[in-house]
Amino acid sequence: MTVIVKKFGGTSVGDTTKIKNVAKRIIRTIELGHQVVVVVSAMGGSTDRLIALAEEISISPPERELDVLLSTGEQVSIALLAMAVSELGYEAISLTGNQVGILTDGFYSNARIVSINNARILTELDLGKVVILAGFQGVTIDDEITTLGRGASDTTAVAVAASLGAERCEIYTDVDGIFTADPRIVKNARKLNQITHEEMLEMAGLGAKVLHSRSVELAQKFEVPLAVRSSFHQGEGTIIVKESEMMERVVVSGVTSNTDQAKISLIGIEDKPGVAAKVFQAVAEQKINIDMIIQNIGHDGTADLSFTVSEKDLSSTVDIIEKVRRQIKIATVETDSNISKVSVVGIGMVSHVGIAAKMFSALAIENINIQMISTSEIKISCVINQLQTEKAVQVVHDSFDLGRSVS
Amino acid sequence: MTVIVKKFGGTSVGDTTKIKNVAKRIIRTIELGHQVVVVVSAMGGSTDRLIALAEEISISPPERELDVLLSTGEQVSIALLAMAVSELGYEAISLTGNQVGILTDGFYSNARIVSINNARILTELDLGKVVILAGFQGVTIDDEITTLGRGASDTTAVAVAASLGAERCEIYTDVDGIFTADPRIVKNARKLNQITHEEMLEMAGLGAKVLHSRSVELAQKFEVPLAVRSSFHQGEGTIIVKESEMMERVVVSGVTSNTDQAKISLIGIEDKPGVAAKVFQAVAEQKINIDMIIQNIGHDGTADLSFTVSEKDLSSTVDIIEKVRRQIKIATVETDSNISKVSVVGIGMVSHVGIAAKMFSALAIENINIQMISTSEIKISCVINQLQTEKAVQVVHDSFDLGRSVS
Repeated sequence: MTVIVKKFGGTSVGDTTKIKNVAKRIIRTIELGHQVVVVVSAMGGSTDRLIALAEEISISPPERELDVLLSTGEQVSIALLAMAVSELGYEAISLTGNQVGILTDGFYSNARIVSINNARILTELDLGKVVILAGFQGVTIDDEITTLGRGASDTTAVAVAASLGAERCEIYTDVDGIFTADPRIVKNARKLNQITHEEMLEMAGLGAKVLHSRSVELAQKFEVPLAVRSSFHQGEGTIIVKESEMMERVVVSGVTSNTDQAKISLIGIEDKPGVAAKVFQAVAEQKINIDMIIQNIGHDGTADLSFTVSEKDLSSTVDIIEKVRRQIKIATVETDSNISKVSVVGIGMVSHVGIAAKMFSALAIENINIQMISTSEIKISCVINQLQTEKAVQVVHDSFDLGRSVS
Repeated sequence: MTVIVKKFGGTSVGDTTKIKNVAKRIIRTIELGHQVVVVVSAMGGSTDRLIALAEEISISPPERELDVLLSTGEQVSIALLAMAVSELGYEAISLTGNQVGILTDGFYSNARIVSINNARILTELDLGKVVILAGFQGVTIDDEITTLGRGASDTTAVAVAASLGAERCEIYTDVDGIFTADPRIVKNARKLNQITHEEMLEMAGLGAKVLHSRSVELAQKFEVPLAVRSSFHQGEGTIIVKESEMMERVVVSGVTSNTDQAKISLIGIEDKPGVAAKVFQAVAEQKINIDMIIQNIGHDGTADLSFTVSEKDLSSTVDIIEKVRRQIKIATVETDSNISKVSVVGIGMVSHVGIAAKMFSALAIENINIQMISTSEIKISCVINQLQTEKAVQVVHDSFDLGRSVS
């Protein structure tokens, strides 16, 4: 028998009616002769409610305790879903991160999975049960409860699918699949039937919130067939495939935007070897992800260094920079959180010329100023004024003719 | 340094403001030079909310999953309280039943503590931390999450106090201590400064909801000094003492009532050896507690057997009886949930005559009919019509002159 891993996010289990619908959906797969492992997130809104409680007590609660608190959200939803499956006459069992043995490192609120012990899961599957796992959470070797970061239930699902050698991993969400752009911004955005891991990674990293980046990385690494589907319809969704399996090679797959960005500029920094390393090492030690980096030659033997981080990390990054300033001369530190990043992504880009030029001129026609540029083999990103985000996404989407053909 | 165990119930941690107050209260004890272990219940109302969610999904959800669900309530409150203590500048750490190692048997929803591993608690105390434990929950040897039954956080607290050899265990609650009767029913009920374990056990078993019976049993067995105090005032509360330490021996300590009772009568049951055993064994196997039992000789070689159970257990008890009926002849099964039990409790009763007579005549004067009677060395209980409960408690309280002297 083949194992299928299904992951349902917070909106899919947002209330008890939706939980019952998820149970029915699971049963349909069981009746097709598969063994099913389900990974669930906390009920929609519950994580925010728990965070609000913590904030009433402390503006910066200890991260260990925050993880103890937040991990209860998934524990509630696995128990309720197990009840709903049982109610339909099928045996089900819920397992917490601790009960499964999802072993992580000790970085609270952003832990990484070290290993998954699949013994308990296999035992329960062999007993004919639907196995329902808490996403997002794990446990350290010392029995401490950890969480894997927001959206990381996808990662739990793919990691579990990899450890079980599952037939496929299906991520159920509140949209129909991966689109050429955010359908809330671009009305004629088109659903993609296929996308490569590389493209999906870029799009996830660039702010398309459908899949958690680490889940795509893991799926690629362990060759787990991955699909994104709607929780509410029966459609096929979008399949994430290897580049070699891509049926039709398109130049540009999609346009994304990310407004959760902030820019930090270090003006007049000593221009000597090791300076940039010192800055970014200090930031990395606090587990803050840096996105774009640009360095320009300045004046009088100094340089200007700009980089972007998530908006939520801005104040702690500035704190780190102030500490670094005790060792390294920096004339001025400037910050700007009123920015966004607009990107085009496509595996075909590498073999086509003029993609960047086309993007830049589309922006220029609309008088949108480009503050920073970063490129890879399969993406081009521009940092712009945040107020111009939606216009920028629309014009770039139009310029590459990505929309549905409207008859 | 001496260890003090403090237990705070759901109303004491009902919102974040109250949680902050509990944190302050803990700090005051720390500053007196004690090590403090805190046991907390779920925030008031949260257990009911979780049960309501489960009931939306299933009228009888699997008990294993119900325990997975309900145990999240305490996990939320320990994390929040640990944050509140940290916010005051003291180190704190929360521990779940699993993290402590509160090992229980496998009877979901009503598990018993088998052992407590105090190693982790001692380690954290030695590090100078306030240790905050989830009450009500434990874990089986197979890593399954269990709960100990409603109100059982008291039991967790006393068991932990016993395992640590704590100086004392303080149960904080929303009343000022143990009263001669429920102050909501009897206006002139008086707070007791002392009460013996035996009396407290009878009163807890009889429906005085201040302390969980098993906690009193444990305190007696392991000689843990136990006190009941108000969460909101600084008063001394009531100390539960050994009989030999009782300063003044009173005849009757209090009057209690319990409306959560149902009576089952088996009319015309075979009158031969082993029949009652078969009935009560079948009920016991389902972990249903039977309270009062009365057997009368019937007619034609049959007997009548009546017993009481908790109202919530009535329907499952009837189911069990229907199964037993396949093996044993029972002419009729009658049930009545419109009953209550009124009791007087007092360690001095054993050496005084006429207590029962005084109680019965107090009831008779008010035309309250007694349906069943049960006595022990330190209590007399009468089953009466539920509608007459408050009147009965008041007249019995008056007849033993238990009230405050009103000047």
